Amino acid sequence: MENIWSSEYLIPILERANQIASTSQLDDLLDQMMDLVIETCQGDAGTLYMLDRQANELVFNVVKGDENSRLLLGKRISVTQGIVGATLRERKPLWVPDIAKDPRWFRDINGPDHKHQPHSVLSFPLLLHNEPIAVVQVFDPAFPELQLVQLLGNRMASEIDKAMLLAASQQRNERLQALVEIIGYIGSSLNQDDILHMIIDFACQLLNAEAGSLFLVDEETGDLVLHVANNVTERNLLGVRVPAGKGIIGYVVRSGETVLVADTRQDARHYSQVDQDSGFETRSILAVPLKARTVVLGGEQGVTQEHIIGGLEALNKLEGTFDQEDARLLETFANQTATVLEIARLYTNTSELLLGVVKALTTAIDAKDPYTEGHSQRVSDYSLAIARELDISTETINHLRIAGLLHDVGKIGVPDIVLKKPGHLDAEEMAEMKKHPMIGEKIMSSVRTLQNEMPAITEHHERVDGTGYPKGLSGEDISLIGRIVAVADVFDALTSDRPYRQGQATEQVFQDLLAGIGTHFDANCVNALISAYQRGMVQTQKERERGPAHTQAQTQHH
Amino acid sequence: MENIWSSEYLIPILERANQIASTSQLDDLLDQMMDLVIETCQGDAGTLYMLDRQANELVFNVVKGDENSRLLLGKRISVTQGIVGATLRERKPLWVPDIAKDPRWFRDINGPDHKHQPHSVLSFPLLLHNEPIAVVQVFDPAFPELQLVQLLGNRMASEIDKAMLLAASQQRNERLQALVEIIGYIGSSLNQDDILHMIIDFACQLLNAEAGSLFLVDEETGDLVLHVANNVTERNLLGVRVPAGKGIIGYVVRSGETVLVADTRQDARHYSQVDQDSGFETRSILAVPLKARTVVLGGEQGVTQEHIIGGLEALNKLEGTFDQEDARLLETFANQTATVLEIARLYTNTSELLLGVVKALTTAIDAKDPYTEGHSQRVSDYSLAIARELDISTETINHLRIAGLLHDVGKIGVPDIVLKKPGHLDAEEMAEMKKHPMIGEKIMSSVRTLQNEMPAITEHHERVDGTGYPKGLSGEDISLIGRIVAVADVFDALTSDRPYRQGQATEQVFQDLLAGIGTHFDANCVNALISAYQRGMVQTQKERERGPAHTQAQTQHH
Repeated sequence: MENIWSSEYLIPILERANQIASTSQLDDLLDQMMDLVIETCQGDAGTLYMLDRQANELVFNVVKGDENSRLLLGKRISVTQGIVGATLRERKPLWVPDIAKDPRWFRDINGPDHKHQPHSVLSFPLLLHNEPIAVVQVFDPAFPELQLVQLLGNRMASEIDKAMLLAASQQRNERLQALVEIIGYIGSSLNQDDILHMIIDFACQLLNAEAGSLFLVDEETGDLVLHVANNVTERNLLGVRVPAGKGIIGYVVRSGETVLVADTRQDARHYSQVDQDSGFETRSILAVPLKARTVVLGGEQGVTQEHIIGGLEALNKLEGTFDQEDARLLETFANQTATVLEIARLYTNTSELLLGVVKALTTAIDAKDPYTEGHSQRVSDYSLAIARELDISTETINHLRIAGLLHDVGKIGVPDIVLKKPGHLDAEEMAEMKKHPMIGEKIMSSVRTLQNEMPAITEHHERVDGTGYPKGLSGEDISLIGRIVAVADVFDALTSDRPYRQGQATEQVFQDLLAGIGTHFDANCVNALISAYQRGMVQTQKERERGPAHTQAQTQHH
Repeated sequence: MENIWSSEYLIPILERANQIASTSQLDDLLDQMMDLVIETCQGDAGTLYMLDRQANELVFNVVKGDENSRLLLGKRISVTQGIVGATLRERKPLWVPDIAKDPRWFRDINGPDHKHQPHSVLSFPLLLHNEPIAVVQVFDPAFPELQLVQLLGNRMASEIDKAMLLAASQQRNERLQALVEIIGYIGSSLNQDDILHMIIDFACQLLNAEAGSLFLVDEETGDLVLHVANNVTERNLLGVRVPAGKGIIGYVVRSGETVLVADTRQDARHYSQVDQDSGFETRSILAVPLKARTVVLGGEQGVTQEHIIGGLEALNKLEGTFDQEDARLLETFANQTATVLEIARLYTNTSELLLGVVKALTTAIDAKDPYTEGHSQRVSDYSLAIARELDISTETINHLRIAGLLHDVGKIGVPDIVLKKPGHLDAEEMAEMKKHPMIGEKIMSSVRTLQNEMPAITEHHERVDGTGYPKGLSGEDISLIGRIVAVADVFDALTSDRPYRQGQATEQVFQDLLAGIGTHFDANCVNALISAYQRGMVQTQKERERGPAHTQAQTQHH
């Protein structure tokens, strides 16, 4: 053996170490460094064991040698076993010239198939900041020069450290990037149910958790109500209540603190009732509060108050355990999505308020004419059903819902004496009655947002042959919305019961509508109504009063 | 000199290199490695020059030597100058035993103050993947052993690489974390103006840009309209229009692509009109499209369509130039905030629709009673002014705005003959008229969202002494909202002109209200109204008709 402490020998080795270190892939780096270590000692084979500190086990991370030895990759050995365990515990190199005589040699791991039994082993720990993170063994080295391999070993330790730091940072990056995308996705919905389901599904995905549950505070009682749980078979869990302050989730919501429980059996706060009800075994929990920001509606600036609206739990991490990194990520996620929920709640409230007030007012207007109870609501429903068949945009449909309800709003300006007259109207009275579309237009003229849907009010008494009122428009001069509401209006008038006559059978009314195509009605609108009816999307007043739907309508509308 | 190729000499040096490498702080690491290199050569002093590839300059990054030499830190030298420049260009080590005789020696940099002139220099490049990233020089080395210092140099190169990778990754992390926080902050507003200003301010902050501008597509003309520009003195820029497809911003909005222009003078697409108008000199631009997701309102799931609503520009990076990293970050930011803008637009539309429809309908109801034109609107305004003085929550105030407008909604059910009667009402007619609060309650009873504000309708004719109607409630049995609207209602009745009489002077009416405290009115509500009036938050019908406000009211409401 030549003298290794010669520049001819050393420089190439150290140069190669430098080159290997420029690989940023940790696996490649360790693989090549092991080759270098084995070559430097002129060994037969070698293994790098990484320490799994949580399990107190050493994992076969790189195995160099014959084909069989590769089978060991990924296997584990307790830190109490073998020469490798001794190296780790003693934190210093060991040279065992005759393995067969060493009682620490752990034979089981190689098994009967491992034909080539080594004679000697050079075993040394990789220390990082004086703590062992791995062990390297070289078998049957011709030149067991400890100092030099230890030098390479220390280099490996430092490279492992850096590669792991970089990998951790890059993983954090990927998770943050995913978080941003996910929050953006959730933030594009204003539907509370959708949002709740997305929150829980994405939380599990982000944290690699087996299941999740989301509780919202019931503002009246303070109880926590389970709103969504995913990956749990028992569906009847939804609506389960946890009294305020009870359980881990109660603690989290009350204190505003994150709780990480690695083993629920060890935590007295765990409220096992839910597990008992669901049959789901909760082993570990990461629970965070849902802190929503106060939403700024008008000019109030700089408001950054937060309030806790509930809590989110990720259950049973699928690989490893929940850590501080997971906790921070879930906190960020929970806070952002809580605000999204608040926004959706505000929007839903405002939408419901709009719809509620308009429904209430048009009901009151309908009530002035004793024969038209519920008429405005039904005309709105039928108009929407027709519009949906005709593939009209969501935003127009939302406005049409309101405009349809308001189609007879002008009746507010028709004198009671005309509106409430029981018998037929004379010519003068009829002229008063026919003013209602234009009165309606005047009333609603200031509502900018509704301008496109105004024909629901102004044109629902026009006829495609030009004989309608107030303007006598014909064909496509009548806007689509006007033609839709005209069909919906007549359909309701003919199918509904009146004090002086029964509503007609639906099939008979469809015959009348079809007969009116080209004179009174637009063909597309009539056909769309019939098609919507056949698909169960429309129910007449009589069908509704007959009790439980015999069509699909109710489930579809739900 | 002893033989360095001995284990006694080498091992400690290489061990120290390992130890130094475990430092993750790049500056510390380079500082300590320079010490090690100088010691290894037994030199007097040394310098590490980092290459600034963009400027083609070498920067004095670590300077070891006497006190004076520290003054060189941060100085720059062109890669065409000095022995250091030659080392870099030739990519190989140089040994200059007599500096004084070498024409390449660049004397200027040391200046007249630098007393200690070195005699010799060992100069070598740090190569990363065969590209030079820095140069190290050791002055007056007793032992200019090139091979060994080059070995240490290569180690430094690899460590610099890893430290920079980690620093870049960590910086990306910090920026992403900031992005998440910022998006959450912006996402908690539903006020479009606020959102636009936050978008542009945060974009500049995130990218370290001097200024920014945000354009939105005008849906009718397709023009791009400048909505916000920050850090530009000329305010009249707002509203500037860029024709569709023109300029860099036009290209970005049309193509949906990000554009990065390092020097606007070199890019023909730059639309310099805006610069000319503003007097702002745009040197570099990063422009991204604002892609909003289609917002999910109801059951439509899996909808992930995007549409471009405008474009965002960051102008003049303050240090360095915009890079791909900046571009990706700004893209993510722009897409998320575009969706926030869409949500705010939808909310604002729905709010406006609600307010518009209710105003229109109550105007129509007011119109049935010829004496009360504009009454409902003013009662709503006065009620809000009182509520704001009393520090009532934003959400209640929003609902009170609607409920105040609706306070007389029950008049819809009062016969025309009573409502429109010109003279005084007889007892029977008065009884009909007094039914309007309960009729109003019945009409609005189905509107769940408005239940808390219902007393605006049911209790506005109650009196604190119990002599009011319909229920004869007294004192605090009348809800606060009822007491507020009662004051607002009477205040409007007394200050407004009627066909048969002039409205009274405001001061006189306040006297009447104050006199009614304890019998008719609640003291807090009367005082709140007076205080709001004094602060210019209230304008009576007469004051409004007198033309341009002579109080602060208009600006404050804006």
